[in-house]
Amino acid sequence: MVKKNKSIEINQEQITRDPFPNSNKVYIDGEIHKNIKVAMREILVDENGKNPVHFTTYDTSGPYTDPSIEINIKKGIPKIREKWILDRQDVSFADKFSSSFTNVQREKKELIPLKFLNRKPLVGKDKKNVTQMHYARNGIITPEMEYVAIRENQKIEDFIDNNDLFFNHPGQQFNSSMPEKVITPEFVRDEIASGRAIIPSNINHPEAEPMIIGTNFLVKINANIGNSAVTSSIGEEVEKAVWACRWGADTIMDLSTGSNIHQTREWIIRNSPVPIGTVPIYQALEKVKGIAEDLNWDVFKDTLIEQAEQGVSYFTIHAGVLLRYIPMTAMRRTGIVSRGGSIMAKWCLSHHKENFLYTHFEDICEIMKKYDVSFSLGDGLRPGSIFDANDQAQFAELETLGELTKIAWDHDIQVMIEGPGHVPMQMIKENMDKENDICKGAPFYTLGPLTTDIAPGYDHITSGIGAAMIGWYGTSMLCYVTPKEHLGLPNKDDVKSGVITYKIAAHAANLAKGHITSQLRDNLLSKARFEFRWNDQFNLSLDPDTARSFHDETLPSEGAKVAHFCSMCGPKFCSMRISQDIFDQFGPKDKVDKEMEKKSKEFKDSGSEIYIKVNSQD
Amino acid sequence: MVKKNKSIEINQEQITRDPFPNSNKVYIDGEIHKNIKVAMREILVDENGKNPVHFTTYDTSGPYTDPSIEINIKKGIPKIREKWILDRQDVSFADKFSSSFTNVQREKKELIPLKFLNRKPLVGKDKKNVTQMHYARNGIITPEMEYVAIRENQKIEDFIDNNDLFFNHPGQQFNSSMPEKVITPEFVRDEIASGRAIIPSNINHPEAEPMIIGTNFLVKINANIGNSAVTSSIGEEVEKAVWACRWGADTIMDLSTGSNIHQTREWIIRNSPVPIGTVPIYQALEKVKGIAEDLNWDVFKDTLIEQAEQGVSYFTIHAGVLLRYIPMTAMRRTGIVSRGGSIMAKWCLSHHKENFLYTHFEDICEIMKKYDVSFSLGDGLRPGSIFDANDQAQFAELETLGELTKIAWDHDIQVMIEGPGHVPMQMIKENMDKENDICKGAPFYTLGPLTTDIAPGYDHITSGIGAAMIGWYGTSMLCYVTPKEHLGLPNKDDVKSGVITYKIAAHAANLAKGHITSQLRDNLLSKARFEFRWNDQFNLSLDPDTARSFHDETLPSEGAKVAHFCSMCGPKFCSMRISQDIFDQFGPKDKVDKEMEKKSKEFKDSGSEIYIKVNSQD
Repeated sequence: MVKKNKSIEINQEQITRDPFPNSNKVYIDGEIHKNIKVAMREILVDENGKNPVHFTTYDTSGPYTDPSIEINIKKGIPKIREKWILDRQDVSFADKFSSSFTNVQREKKELIPLKFLNRKPLVGKDKKNVTQMHYARNGIITPEMEYVAIRENQKIEDFIDNNDLFFNHPGQQFNSSMPEKVITPEFVRDEIASGRAIIPSNINHPEAEPMIIGTNFLVKINANIGNSAVTSSIGEEVEKAVWACRWGADTIMDLSTGSNIHQTREWIIRNSPVPIGTVPIYQALEKVKGIAEDLNWDVFKDTLIEQAEQGVSYFTIHAGVLLRYIPMTAMRRTGIVSRGGSIMAKWCLSHHKENFLYTHFEDICEIMKKYDVSFSLGDGLRPGSIFDANDQAQFAELETLGELTKIAWDHDIQVMIEGPGHVPMQMIKENMDKENDICKGAPFYTLGPLTTDIAPGYDHITSGIGAAMIGWYGTSMLCYVTPKEHLGLPNKDDVKSGVITYKIAAHAANLAKGHITSQLRDNLLSKARFEFRWNDQFNLSLDPDTARSFHDETLPSEGAKVAHFCSMCGPKFCSMRISQDIFDQFGPKDKVDKEMEKKSKEFKDSGSEIYIKVNSQD
Repeated sequence: MVKKNKSIEINQEQITRDPFPNSNKVYIDGEIHKNIKVAMREILVDENGKNPVHFTTYDTSGPYTDPSIEINIKKGIPKIREKWILDRQDVSFADKFSSSFTNVQREKKELIPLKFLNRKPLVGKDKKNVTQMHYARNGIITPEMEYVAIRENQKIEDFIDNNDLFFNHPGQQFNSSMPEKVITPEFVRDEIASGRAIIPSNINHPEAEPMIIGTNFLVKINANIGNSAVTSSIGEEVEKAVWACRWGADTIMDLSTGSNIHQTREWIIRNSPVPIGTVPIYQALEKVKGIAEDLNWDVFKDTLIEQAEQGVSYFTIHAGVLLRYIPMTAMRRTGIVSRGGSIMAKWCLSHHKENFLYTHFEDICEIMKKYDVSFSLGDGLRPGSIFDANDQAQFAELETLGELTKIAWDHDIQVMIEGPGHVPMQMIKENMDKENDICKGAPFYTLGPLTTDIAPGYDHITSGIGAAMIGWYGTSMLCYVTPKEHLGLPNKDDVKSGVITYKIAAHAANLAKGHITSQLRDNLLSKARFEFRWNDQFNLSLDPDTARSFHDETLPSEGAKVAHFCSMCGPKFCSMRISQDIFDQFGPKDKVDKEMEKKSKEFKDSGSEIYIKVNSQD
């Protein structure tokens, strides 16, 4: 029965479609694969000035920000990967769904209003392995691999010869650990083959723009959405997904646990330009009416197939919660805080049997490789408080995840590893180092970590600190935390706060890792700031709307957009204005440069004595 | 002339006075000095439960949160230090103010509506040095020193024997760099004497509760307030100060640059329970009508005396901006971004003379030691963008600050050192290390640093990341940044966002440094969370109002305050509920502990093989 008679009639106008200010969607063609077009956002900077430039940035917003593309969310967004997938000739459309649950759902009359269009699921032919890892290990550069190579590089050619903008300060030692060369499709293939990176790309989600998760690429972020039994509807969740992508979510996890999970997910996937992840045990639990003890392999298996046929690109599987680890959580402050972890722990103890996700791990692999669903090996025993960080239970589970990674890789299945949680700053690095060591470089995917427990209402910030640090240390994807964490289901504003905070963390990590394309954006924005090009400053920022509205609170006139001050300091005290006056007054930069050399030399010649005691009067 | 006819008529009801929920103000008596009472906030936790506890926390909110104290902001708050100061018998009340500017202001008829009550300034008798450092070096433990010792310790006796709450997880290696013993007054004296810590405590601000800034104490935060020429009034600024203290500001900097700076400051100081810092060059510039070239030693000297007589406890002095360093900023992306730095640079270049703050540094010392004003040596050449971080100009100035520290210390004047600014994560530690080395352990006081430039509107977060890290590395005080940074003057909401974000950063740093009193709060809150004591969770949080309102958005009923779930996951999927069910079902903690030992032993005995391949069916 459809509870609460939820409506899925989404008004097209409800979906946010405005392009970003002064921005165009541009598409870069592939070279190896001519039929790929990589979407990017191009920002026109200094439009009316002497040196207008087009800055191109990584863009997760999908077709929604391209006004030339018609969007009808009842039909779904364009299937950009469909031809690539079919051209490989290793997949076929099944006549019917293999999941019995799906078939039942499709036939229920009362669910027809919630049903998406008819479609047939793709599956690997004759047990064919259709994973990106399988292709990579066979030396094949897929369109997906070339797509992400182009996407990671962005278009930086315009800036290569402009040292002033592009490179770092000559007086600075920028500690780059990144290759300065362009990412090649072959480099991508090699990273996928080795397991150091993944491209989550279920063949049943051809709408998704390929993206890569790995320590040698830009740090990615995930946004969780999904209804719970208490609140939210299908329509809201679809708009939340579009909204999260707009602000920068690289993947979306649909963590719905309420009613109509199957239908909600279908609508989200068909309209999502980013890969979707799920935790299948949540839906399996719904199917056994919320009684963990009643879970079994059959219901879980059917759920995996159901979701794989819908197009979920990665599954969180809590196969590392072993029976013998559960007692280790007894001395914790906050026990088991992973939903999936606590469900499996309850199952294990009730039956006094080993976790069936663990005992059936090979069976799970057999399913996932037919659709290219990646593993996100869940950390069911992650710490839920500072007190519990880096404890025995947590690291015992990590050892098991290392073993499972090896098994998945033997099946050529892509894997990432989930990480904590709540960890004080001085204990964060150990998490990264252990994961890298135990899981042999498989991408780490962490939830924060939160660096303190005492700020409910601000856990986007407590965790943004930890996320930036662990991103710098090498984590590949950061799962966002919203201000509502521990308190309630996030609304649209919370989703935006979470996404922007995590874009900040990821970008700060990219800078710290020495990504030159990341630094370019900072340099352009700071140049605009110094030159009082307010609109350029807003347009280059992560959230132009907020930056503009904050400025306009006190100085709303258009004239203030070229003023050499803002209300923070007022006209007389603007350091940047004074700084500019100095150089206007005392000569151009070249002259000052020469002056600097001279002064520098004098200073050194004088023996570099800094303090000369003077009792003068001016 | 009074511009805009600003009103200072502040309605008493405008000032926020509500005590925090379930909290009382308690006062701890001194032992060495019987006439000191250290104010703390005591939170009653688990009020109706089996184990109610009183948790006492550091409290910066002053008398405003004590309902038993009458507040009349026209009279100012109680002068708790006055007797201590007078008892030392080294100060006297001057008959009139020594600042000629003050005397002129007091006589202007049109300024009478803005005037605070008459008062006489205190000054060290016969050129007596009245600094805390001077006393410390003479072996004297002042009431201020004992006060901060008691304040830093908080009351933790109740928890000492409760290992479960107080200490860390047995399975965890908590890397404490802090002495676990209680802070003694003698330890405080020694830290002050050595210069590793300061107690900013102008003898003309007896209303302030003593607080200590140093790397071996709790990390502190500063909130900037102050009007600018564009916006804000005296009344708003006083309430902003009270508001900032309420949420946790340890000091306030009054950076007013608009009209009536003198009067605004007087009102703030008389009503402030925390020390006030200023940048005197701002007011000096107002006195010469905003023309930097017209600044001179006389006007600056009179400004120092004016503000010292009012009770400012630390002055930012940009004496390290030397003529020869200025050309080094020419190749920067954002030139000079410190207001004081840019003013002094302009003066230096205009006159082609050395910075008069530098040439008169000894004269400045002579003034400051008569009132116990501490130096906050300004980083006028700090970087204003990621591009400019850790450059030649920045570190050249730091060398000069090191020399000036030594001179100030020769006068027994307390010193802290201001730091950046905009610095990417991987370059933050170098700032702390260099400061510590060059300035011989003088407390570092940093602005953020911001870890990226691309998020105007969210710079409390970009900088909160850097602040937490540099706090962990050893910085003693973190100057907050609000969401309005780079965009406009912060309003009350922005002040709160900035303060809470910085309390998070400071607390995360305290945890990382191993402060056991800090960890206790996390442990108590997480215990409340795990036991679904929602009200306790809110009351122990940094911002109970926000935590409660976020929770109540979806589950407003009082019944939900004891419910074993929230709207984030709903009842069936609450991991903490399931986790508790497990232990309820499978026995008490003790039994599970024993079980754990047994399982652990079995596991080790079996050779610690993690993965056992099973193809079973359940």
